[in-house]
Order: sequence, then structure tokens, then C-alpha cells
Amino acid sequence: MKTHTLLMPLDMHLHLRDGVMLENIAPLTAFTYSGALIMPNLVPPVDTLAAVRSYKERIISAVPNDYFEPFMTLFYKNYDKAFLESVVDEITAIKLYPAGITTNSEGGVESFNIEEMRTTLEAMSDLEIPLCVHGETDGFVMDREAEFMSIYELLAQNFPNLKIVMEHITTKAAVDMLDKYPNLYATITVHHLLLTLDDVIGGMMMPHHFCKPIAKRPEDLDALLSVALEAHPKVMFGSDSAPHPQHKKESCGCAAGVFTAPISLQLLTEIFEQFDKLDNLQAFVSDNAQNIYGICPEFKEITLEKRPFVVPQNYSGVVPMYAGETIGWAIESVD
Amino acid sequence: MKTHTLLMPLDMHLHLRDGVMLENIAPLTAFTYSGALIMPNLVPPVDTLAAVRSYKERIISAVPNDYFEPFMTLFYKNYDKAFLESVVDEITAIKLYPAGITTNSEGGVESFNIEEMRTTLEAMSDLEIPLCVHGETDGFVMDREAEFMSIYELLAQNFPNLKIVMEHITTKAAVDMLDKYPNLYATITVHHLLLTLDDVIGGMMMPHHFCKPIAKRPEDLDALLSVALEAHPKVMFGSDSAPHPQHKKESCGCAAGVFTAPISLQLLTEIFEQFDKLDNLQAFVSDNAQNIYGICPEFKEITLEKRPFVVPQNYSGVVPMYAGETIGWAIESVD
Repeated sequence: MKTHTLLMPLDMHLHLRDGVMLENIAPLTAFTYSGALIMPNLVPPVDTLAAVRSYKERIISAVPNDYFEPFMTLFYKNYDKAFLESVVDEITAIKLYPAGITTNSEGGVESFNIEEMRTTLEAMSDLEIPLCVHGETDGFVMDREAEFMSIYELLAQNFPNLKIVMEHITTKAAVDMLDKYPNLYATITVHHLLLTLDDVIGGMMMPHHFCKPIAKRPEDLDALLSVALEAHPKVMFGSDSAPHPQHKKESCGCAAGVFTAPISLQLLTEIFEQFDKLDNLQAFVSDNAQNIYGICPEFKEITLEKRPFVVPQNYSGVVPMYAGETIGWAIESVD
Repeated sequence: MKTHTLLMPLDMHLHLRDGVMLENIAPLTAFTYSGALIMPNLVPPVDTLAAVRSYKERIISAVPNDYFEPFMTLFYKNYDKAFLESVVDEITAIKLYPAGITTNSEGGVESFNIEEMRTTLEAMSDLEIPLCVHGETDGFVMDREAEFMSIYELLAQNFPNLKIVMEHITTKAAVDMLDKYPNLYATITVHHLLLTLDDVIGGMMMPHHFCKPIAKRPEDLDALLSVALEAHPKVMFGSDSAPHPQHKKESCGCAAGVFTAPISLQLLTEIFEQFDKLDNLQAFVSDNAQNIYGICPEFKEITLEKRPFVVPQNYSGVVPMYAGETIGWAIESVD
């Protein structure tokens, strides 16, 4: 049986929610990942030192062993340098949401006025805190990410020493930015390496493939695959795995988010093997993130096996991507 | 109270289904429309003289009075001229579906080989039977209609005496074809005069706005409005109202189709009033179709009143567009 081993996988964009949902789903990521960058869009958002510490404790309490590290983020607001100095040792990045652009982002940035943001972003540069950005405008759904490129350019030009991570990129436009500015990086989800808009609304309407940013055109998928499969050194895996209760996905007005946490490594292995790029997966799923963020994750060795695996219909009431379908790789062992 | 009167409204693209669904929904259209062009995509498709006659009888039995005429269509296959001569007096048009492109279209055209279709299409030209076409390729969902334009051009050029109706157009590309070929016409739905893809997946995922062809970009909506509001003489209203049971719309893998039959005239009046084009609505919703098809519908006079109307949550288990929302016009009287 063909196997493949990965060391210290990292999910550099993860939603763990809170309360019972957190307790149910955090162990699924902790099982196969050494660590994950935890998104701060709770209600209320994670925007104080106390909130960061308390949320981190709740996450650690929710996972069954010591082999998983939650890398914490702060919800972007205009903070002063003294505050950032007080919190820098507790966080790995700050996550910026345009206001209202996705789940629980109402308290995000209303307009990208560089001068209003300068104090915060210069302090972040000085303190070497990366800025993670949900890069969408409020324009037409297929254009939102591409329209945001001018804001990425503005940020990259004005703060050349700030590491800026374009989160969950979905377009060729974003891929093309990677080699244009030395301080722009990106995460890519596994579902955006598999889906186009055809898989969301091209046949039947598929709520479990509905996410923000929406999956785009075939040429965008090709561009994402090109940098992921080569493990472009500025690109990292970030699942954006986003659990919602089943009834919120399978109803009128379904919520945005694809839940991939328990199957992301299996799917990534299948994709990279299919394109004969398995040797690059280690960099995409761990090494690049270690280099970009300067983090040293806990040791963990995951062995995957090439055999049919039927994705469960749900995990504690959350329906995963490809529920009930058979994928080509399974987790064989975790050490 | 402001009112507006329409004479002999016609819905030139309507799905009435069969059986209990037919009995439940046909009266809703018959209440306000003098007639409608009835789509033939039943299971099995309406493709014999006996099927046309029998379906027409079932429709007439389902409507409560004599003031509604179902204009029948035949499901396109390659028919010989003798057959078409036998059926010409019983049908108003023939409807062509690319195979598998939408609900119950599996028996449609596999490939557009003009020579294989020549006998049928020349006979239709001679017998003055219009060809109605669901114009989508099996390509990427946002490109399917635009990609089909080359097939419309092929048909229009090869059969200059055949009236070809581009059904439920959704793109500027299709609008631009209207003035390019004298024998190309179009229907436009009311939901495609209101929605873009943003209304389907731009916020929450909205199954009751999910249809084929999918609603497109803002510039496409503008192009559709431009010809509808001017009542371009080659453009007709056709609702493509397509009922599905509620459970088939509000579940994983929701079926395509927007149900507008009971509210289409009210919405059209609201749109045309909003753009100060009420004087053109009569042509869009009846006169153009009479001229294009050479049909003389039964007399019917509909008066609409400008007052808030709350759209019912469902009609016999079918959820209409804008269920529970308030629209600006209501039916005042039918004579």
C-alpha cells in the first residue's frame, strides 16, 4: 500500500469557533496538525490581551493532548504601539476583516484610509507582527477579490517591512501579486484547489461548497494549483475550515463556509499525488509557514495511506466537504 | 391609488409540469394571463401529436375557466416534414434543449450538427414553426450562454426564414445578437430583470434565486433592462416560472428554477414603473409576442394597483420568489 509521511503539518487559517462547537471540532484539527493559526472573528471579536489568553486556554482545554499549538491572532482595529507591545508575545499575527464582508466581521475596517491605519501598521512592522487580510471588496461577488488588489498594493507599498498575508486567495489576480511585492504572502485552502463556481451552482446548488470568497473560474483554479503544487515559498496551506451547524448550511439563506478540518490532509495528499507533486506537499503544508512566520511547531509525524476513505456524513452535527463520498487517501498513523 | 391596466398578458415561456403540480399551479397563471407558451420538458418529453393533445387537455382541465390558452410546444428532435405537417396546427413552436442542460432535458440535442438538423429546420421554416432554444453550452456556468452565441449564429445564418427565439436570455452577449440577425428573437424572465449572481450567492446562498441560466453580472442585467424597458420589438416576456416542491429547493443539491407565476405581472409593473417606462409594458408583456408569433390571445384585462403586497410563503407547497417579502404592486381586478 502506498504511503506518504508529513512532518508537523500546519493549518495557517482556521476557524475553531467557541463553546460546544470548539470542543467538538478542535480535536479534529489537533489530531493531524501540529498547530494552526486561529482566526479571531468570535462574537465579540478577540481584540484584547485578556481575550487572546482566554481563547487560547479554551482551545488548549478542548484538545485532548499537548501536541497541538494554537497560534493566536488579534482582530484588527487601529491599536496603539503600547498595546501592541503588550500583546506581541501572545499573538502570531493580526487578522484584518473589511467590515461586514464575511461571518462575524461587522467590527472590521470600514474604509482603507492608510493614514488612519499608519500608526498601527508601522508598529506592527516594528514589532514584526504579520498582517493577515481577508481581501474582498463589497463589489460584485466574482470581482471582490480582484478589486481588492489595489488595496494590497497600497498596503505593500506603504509598509514595505510589514509581512502581509493575502488569506484564502481564489484568483489568478492574487497569484500574480506574489512575485510583484516582496512583502506579500498568501494562504490557499484545499477546497479552492478543488472547486470552481461550477461546483457551487453549475449543476445543483451545493451549500457545502459555498464559501467566501466564492470559488472562481477554471483559469483561477489553474493559477492557484500552479503555485500550490510548486510550493511557491510565499504560499502556505490555510484551510479556512469553517464549521456551521448542519441546519444553517442546508436551509434557505445558507451560511458561508466549507468544513474540511478532518479531511484536509487527505485531500491535499490526493491532489499533490494526482499531479505527481507529492514531494512538494511538505513545504506547502508546513515548511513555508515555518519560514514565513518564524514558528517552530511541535513534532508530529503523520502517515497517510492510499486507500479509499468514505468521508463521514457529519462530525458532531457539522457536515464536512464531500460527506458520504469516497476520497483516495486516509490517515494511517500519527506519531 | 395609482393603477395600471394591461390587456391580454402573455407568458411566452412557462413550465406547468403535470399531475397534481399542474393542477395546483396552472390556475395561478390562468388567473392573470390570456395565454402562455408551454414548455414540453415533461418525463417523457412531449414529442408526439398524441402527447401534445393530451397535455393540452390536461392543462385546460386544470384551469378553472375558458379565458386561458395554452400555446403548445413540441420537444425538439429531428422530425421529418410529414410529421411536422401533421402537428403544425396543434403547436405554436418547437423547443430545443441541449441534452442534459437543465431539468428533464436528457433527451435533447447532443451536438449541433447543422446537416443532421437541416431536414427538420427547413421543414419548420416552410411551415413557419418557430424554434425556441435553451441556449447554453456545458461550459463554465458564467460562460454557458455567451459560448452558445456561435450556435445561434450558425442557426440564424443557415435558416434565415426560421424564427429563432433565444429563451430566457441573461447576458449582454445575447442582447447584442438581437440587432445582428433579423430572425433572432428573445424572451426575458422577470427574475433576470431583478437579480445578478450577487442575489444568488453574494450574501447568503439563496436557493429560491437559483435557476438555469444563472443570473449573471451587473452589466448583463443592465443590458437586459435596456431592451425590456424599451420593449424592443424582438423581445417578449417569458417567465420561465419553474415550480419545484419546497423540499427540492431547500435542501442539499437544490433544483434549479424560480417560481414567479403568481407575482410576475406585479413585479414587472413595479420594475417598469420604477424606470418610468410603464407605457412600454403592454408591448413587452403581450403585443410583441402577438406580432412575433402571430397569435391572437383571448381578451383579458388586468388592473394592477400600487399598494404593498406581501408575497405568500408558498402556493400549494411551492415557494415563490420573494416569499414573505413586500412588493409594490398587487392585482386589483381581472376582466
